[in-house]
Amino acid sequence: MFEISDRAKAIEAELLEFMDSFVYPAEAVYEQQMLEARDPHHHPQILEDLKDLAKQRGLWNLFHPHPDWGPGLTNLEYAPLCEIMGRSAFLAPEVFNCSAPDTGNMEVFTLFGSDEHKERWLRPLLDGTIRSAFAMTEPAVASSDATNVEMSMVRDGDEYVLNGRKWFASNALHRNCKVLIVMGKTDPDALPHRQQSMMVVPIDAPGVEVLRNLTVFGYADREGHAEITFTDVRVPAKDVLKGEGEGFAIAQARLGPGRIHHCMRTIGVAERALELMCRRADSRVTWGQPVSERANIQDWIAEARIDIEMIRLLTLKAAYLMDTVGNKAARTEIAAIKVAAPNIALTIIDRAIQVHGAGGVTGDFPLAAAYAHVRTLRLADGPDEVHKRAIARQELRRHRDTAESRG
Amino acid sequence: MFEISDRAKAIEAELLEFMDSFVYPAEAVYEQQMLEARDPHHHPQILEDLKDLAKQRGLWNLFHPHPDWGPGLTNLEYAPLCEIMGRSAFLAPEVFNCSAPDTGNMEVFTLFGSDEHKERWLRPLLDGTIRSAFAMTEPAVASSDATNVEMSMVRDGDEYVLNGRKWFASNALHRNCKVLIVMGKTDPDALPHRQQSMMVVPIDAPGVEVLRNLTVFGYADREGHAEITFTDVRVPAKDVLKGEGEGFAIAQARLGPGRIHHCMRTIGVAERALELMCRRADSRVTWGQPVSERANIQDWIAEARIDIEMIRLLTLKAAYLMDTVGNKAARTEIAAIKVAAPNIALTIIDRAIQVHGAGGVTGDFPLAAAYAHVRTLRLADGPDEVHKRAIARQELRRHRDTAESRG
Amino acid sequence: MFEISDRAKAIEAELLEFMDSFVYPAEAVYEQQMLEARDPHHHPQILEDLKDLAKQRGLWNLFHPHPDWGPGLTNLEYAPLCEIMGRSAFLAPEVFNCSAPDTGNMEVFTLFGSDEHKERWLRPLLDGTIRSAFAMTEPAVASSDATNVEMSMVRDGDEYVLNGRKWFASNALHRNCKVLIVMGKTDPDALPHRQQSMMVVPIDAPGVEVLRNLTVFGYADREGHAEITFTDVRVPAKDVLKGEGEGFAIAQARLGPGRIHHCMRTIGVAERALELMCRRADSRVTWGQPVSERANIQDWIAEARIDIEMIRLLTLKAAYLMDTVGNKAARTEIAAIKVAAPNIALTIIDRAIQVHGAGGVTGDFPLAAAYAHVRTLRLADGPDEVHKRAIARQELRRHRDTAESRG
Amino acid sequence: MFEISDRAKAIEAELLEFMDSFVYPAEAVYEQQMLEARDPHHHPQILEDLKDLAKQRGLWNLFHPHPDWGPGLTNLEYAPLCEIMGRSAFLAPEVFNCSAPDTGNMEVFTLFGSDEHKERWLRPLLDGTIRSAFAMTEPAVASSDATNVEMSMVRDGDEYVLNGRKWFASNALHRNCKVLIVMGKTDPDALPHRQQSMMVVPIDAPGVEVLRNLTVFGYADREGHAEITFTDVRVPAKDVLKGEGEGFAIAQARLGPGRIHHCMRTIGVAERALELMCRRADSRVTWGQPVSERANIQDWIAEARIDIEMIRLLTLKAAYLMDTVGNKAARTEIAAIKVAAPNIALTIIDRAIQVHGAGGVTGDFPLAAAYAHVRTLRLADGPDEVHKRAIARQELRRHRDTAESRG
Repeated sequence: MFEISDRAKAIEAELLEFMDSFVYPAEAVYEQQMLEARDPHHHPQILEDLKDLAKQRGLWNLFHPHPDWGPGLTNLEYAPLCEIMGRSAFLAPEVFNCSAPDTGNMEVFTLFGSDEHKERWLRPLLDGTIRSAFAMTEPAVASSDATNVEMSMVRDGDEYVLNGRKWFASNALHRNCKVLIVMGKTDPDALPHRQQSMMVVPIDAPGVEVLRNLTVFGYADREGHAEITFTDVRVPAKDVLKGEGEGFAIAQARLGPGRIHHCMRTIGVAERALELMCRRADSRVTWGQPVSERANIQDWIAEARIDIEMIRLLTLKAAYLMDTVGNKAARTEIAAIKVAAPNIALTIIDRAIQVHGAGGVTGDFPLAAAYAHVRTLRLADGPDEVHKRAIARQELRRHRDTAESRG
Repeated sequence: MFEISDRAKAIEAELLEFMDSFVYPAEAVYEQQMLEARDPHHHPQILEDLKDLAKQRGLWNLFHPHPDWGPGLTNLEYAPLCEIMGRSAFLAPEVFNCSAPDTGNMEVFTLFGSDEHKERWLRPLLDGTIRSAFAMTEPAVASSDATNVEMSMVRDGDEYVLNGRKWFASNALHRNCKVLIVMGKTDPDALPHRQQSMMVVPIDAPGVEVLRNLTVFGYADREGHAEITFTDVRVPAKDVLKGEGEGFAIAQARLGPGRIHHCMRTIGVAERALELMCRRADSRVTWGQPVSERANIQDWIAEARIDIEMIRLLTLKAAYLMDTVGNKAARTEIAAIKVAAPNIALTIIDRAIQVHGAGGVTGDFPLAAAYAHVRTLRLADGPDEVHKRAIARQELRRHRDTAESRG
Repeated sequence: MFEISDRAKAIEAELLEFMDSFVYPAEAVYEQQMLEARDPHHHPQILEDLKDLAKQRGLWNLFHPHPDWGPGLTNLEYAPLCEIMGRSAFLAPEVFNCSAPDTGNMEVFTLFGSDEHKERWLRPLLDGTIRSAFAMTEPAVASSDATNVEMSMVRDGDEYVLNGRKWFASNALHRNCKVLIVMGKTDPDALPHRQQSMMVVPIDAPGVEVLRNLTVFGYADREGHAEITFTDVRVPAKDVLKGEGEGFAIAQARLGPGRIHHCMRTIGVAERALELMCRRADSRVTWGQPVSERANIQDWIAEARIDIEMIRLLTLKAAYLMDTVGNKAARTEIAAIKVAAPNIALTIIDRAIQVHGAGGVTGDFPLAAAYAHVRTLRLADGPDEVHKRAIARQELRRHRDTAESRG
Repeated sequence: MFEISDRAKAIEAELLEFMDSFVYPAEAVYEQQMLEARDPHHHPQILEDLKDLAKQRGLWNLFHPHPDWGPGLTNLEYAPLCEIMGRSAFLAPEVFNCSAPDTGNMEVFTLFGSDEHKERWLRPLLDGTIRSAFAMTEPAVASSDATNVEMSMVRDGDEYVLNGRKWFASNALHRNCKVLIVMGKTDPDALPHRQQSMMVVPIDAPGVEVLRNLTVFGYADREGHAEITFTDVRVPAKDVLKGEGEGFAIAQARLGPGRIHHCMRTIGVAERALELMCRRADSRVTWGQPVSERANIQDWIAEARIDIEMIRLLTLKAAYLMDTVGNKAARTEIAAIKVAAPNIALTIIDRAIQVHGAGGVTGDFPLAAAYAHVRTLRLADGPDEVHKRAIARQELRRHRDTAESRG
């Protein structure tokens, strides 16, 4: 089932070996270098060392579906690789140049960028020398309804003038972040899905001000989640992606792979949490019995295994459908994994924390940070409720159609 | 993914057409014939009519994996067919001669029966002229721990003498039930998994007394769940299946397909419930809005769709593994679907009942009966807790092995 | 806390003694008499015997808040008594003349009945010689939105002419049922809450046809849940309760106590299920350990105890508020227990079933029938969702008011 | 119900007024002062200002049950006050000198301290001039089983020599922390509950080293959760509390009030989260409708209200029982609220976060920090599972006793 090529299997074997030999052992080094720097946005040397090593081994840009720019794996082939990277979520994705939101941005540049965009931004992104951010969500409105977006983009000659406020622009505080893809409103009077445009804006453009980092629970993430104001920022018309009014269409194109990558990584996080839960349960003794012998903990372990198996298969199916019938036809499955993967992972991580006792909520284990990170995925790219609404409307429509065709 | 043969696809198309043309329209007829008979164990004529029709179309014994006795479909190929039958759970499986526990018993006779067993029991079972029951569970003990089985089978010359009490022998009150496969203890002093044997016992053997039917919630099922006493029942040694002490091994062989068929049918039940939920939600109006517009009901619909997609894929994977690496290697997946499928279906059915209002708990819709039936599956062949325990122990072992190989 | 009078405590002690001495031992007799009658609506002798005994002891009409007609206990005083009766839910409430919907109907006759009504219906109801039903829900519409009610009540001289169809008229198949209180629409053009009226209709009035009993999860309840058609039924104007257009107001007055009695009884059901769960867990052994030693079952037992404690206190608070500030001021608490009590009880009963193994779903234990009965309470008098909506709107309003008063 | 004195009501009114006038407005000031200090353990001036004010108003040491040292309120009287403080959980408890673990420690000094302890430690604690910590949990073992405690306390003449490692000593990084109460093992060969002793240790005693603060979901709490090593720390015998071997007994005495205070505060946190959820739901619009109109969000609001009402009543009952029959007789109720309060609050906070969108996980709202804090309460003083085990064993015992007395 879900057959993958021998080539993808070979990459998987290499990746696993690399994780064991280099990534897991580097986790403590990474923690130490970050701690010593006393700067949450520090870019530690170990990352660059591992990036070099990964590039040498050809474990680089594995996500990129276009053979010109990467190994050209299908989504189905990339899925297990992405999950493996997710097991070391704060380190591995960047080591292999497969971290969000850069992967999504690279896809956008590949599909919709001009030659200049490709030269100036895509190439160094693929080389891992610069990073990028995506500025869509706004603090003042519920951005899941795209028509709510308020950032104004007003045409003025050969330029657009941008004014507005964005937040949760992830990666914008990465030391190497150089460019933003910005979503805004070029025509408030157009049809709802033609009002928005996306533009390419250098992070050092006049009028762009990165105000602050937003903490997630108590974490100040290294890559950052920035609040940014745009004050009379002038963007040349050539930096509009795909064309005016195409913002919503690009967002749709971008979100498919973006969501599926998040889900794959999240499954890796869940597997890691389950492994930690098992090991801890084996090593702690209460009232003369290892915790792993207790039936309530065994129920948690079993439910974790069941749920992980199910969500992995659904994610693979979504990947397969994207490969074979396209993102649009796969939209129910993509929405389904967007909802299910974080919820499943959160339950597993929470129970792993519980098995760890007080240590579970600290920085001594990767569980609390994983919880905080995965919790944001229930909101990023739209809250669960928006995706469930879409799935339900699709389902209701299907039964109405059947009823009509039968009647 | 999960590729199936053109032949299986063709059968699926025929089966769908048969369901639409004959089975769904027959549901009301069936209900009416049962009502008029005023006998819960009545065998209504419509069943025989449909069986004839199904046999003519070659939609018969689809479950049987052995090409000598059926179409020889793999578990993976049979899965979607079984799910379709599950949509009309009280009618369709028997129409196509694919109902439990006959399918499991036919497999046992195929694998472990003597030529005489095949002639006398397997042939008419495959023809649909007789039915069979499986007597394993006992009222006095928790039978999920097989060593608890108390039915004694004492060798006496060329015979065994059986004494004990069984219950939940499903099908034993079917009008056509002729034979029982009985699990008991031949050697209490053997190793735990060598204590039990299985024997073939005609239902009219002297000393076999069918005491009563057990109701399920308030339902007296047509096929019945019998409590049976065995008093000095003499069974010739030739009617021991596979050999003395092989009872546990046969049970293992039997349970794999049995469980997976139950899961497949349960997914069909869940799909039917979801369809009914959608239709009802569209047709009921409160405070000026169809119920289907309410976000809590939409959440239920979406969660149903997500969960059904996940459990179907896991069931297909279990089937695929059984086909390719065998029942034993697939035991975690089989246990997983045994737990997950009924729980998922019950939530969906319960919510469908809620959307139906008071009608949902009555006989006017198939939901309450479906709930009662699926609820028993959380107990049949071992309660959830036993299967979760097995999954957890397997998972814990896996991480212990990894730890050792790393250390 | 929740102080109750010495008089109420004395009644409680007598009631407990009566339950132990007479009611629990009678359960098996009741089952046997019903079984032998082979008629689900049979009225077994044991009931009349126990009623006589209860009347002699003064354990009669304990529910009635008006000292003229009963002991005059407050809702708070009656609550623990009602819970105790709920422990033997299919027998005790009727033994003490405290069964639904008669208690609600007796309150309606007390508050809104004419002298004739009191003489003809209330007196024999209080004596336990007749029974009554309440006909409000309709099969064609979602009756939780009262404006949906379709039963027409057209004035014609000194009479009203009733046409329509009701279902779930509980008690209408009780052998002694003599009278219906019927809700219908007298003025479709009035304000929403003035459209309905309630009328008193003898069950043998011309044009009233009890079509059938509705089963609940396969159970044909003794008292019955009837579908009834009304065809040109003529009702004298003097049999309109309280006045034309007062139907909604009466329903509100009736539902408060009705709901709280259901909740109290439901807590009794939950306590009984927990007791059964504990006893069964102690008596079953798997893998060398009583089931009660397993941590997952212990979690269930603990969660049951916690939830029962919480819902009992909330029910007592609702009762206290009804006694002190009135049904209307207690509406949030009444809605809250209406939602919480059945859901809590269902989880406990379901887990008790699971601990019982296959026996749990049969008639050998009172669990499956309890489940079916309590499940209907999530729909009766409005589904959970309607009550949650009311609570939420109240909560939102409260915070809006605070915001305004602060601003 | 749950009658409280006029005096307690008057204090409640004053406290509410103080919260509105001083505490809520100070929250932003507090945040600002902490931010500017760039030191997570900074002691901001606003705290001292508010403490002075609270002391002037007599809103001081409200927790203390002994009239010599505080207002002498019962637990039942203190409960609503403690809940009110919980609404501003990071500020209010300390403002009123009612913060954990100082309250528990003050009770221990009151009950078991020598005159010297009272003079040197209790008096300044009650004055709010110093703070204290409680060192019980250890990193190496599951401390919920008290016999696991490894810290050694070896008698040497008139002194004990302490060696071991503690963590989650909350408050130890508070700028004013001066003293520790330390639990350790004086006699490993004694009966399980006589092995431990508690001693008073100045934080600056030679050999005490505060190694580091433990973060909680990324938060470095102001008061800190310290890891501390004890190396040959010499403690005079007079500083053993109550006597050698009395550690377990003191822990039991201490935990009752400690737990109930945590629960009360947690209910305040839940109320605050519900209020924030309602306000946010009213202010966000998607697809032309305020989020507060959506039925799934209304369900969340209603469920929050129901659960808060229930847990508050159970907490009051536990308080009432502690006041009237003592901590030991109230142990089931105390364990019950210890489990239920944090779980209920976490669900409400999590849903409030979800309604807030991405902002919910940041520091812009108090929700994420509240989540992290309340999550630790499922582990502090023993994980949920330990308390459920205790409740279940108690419940099982009760039914065994009944069975015996009946049999």
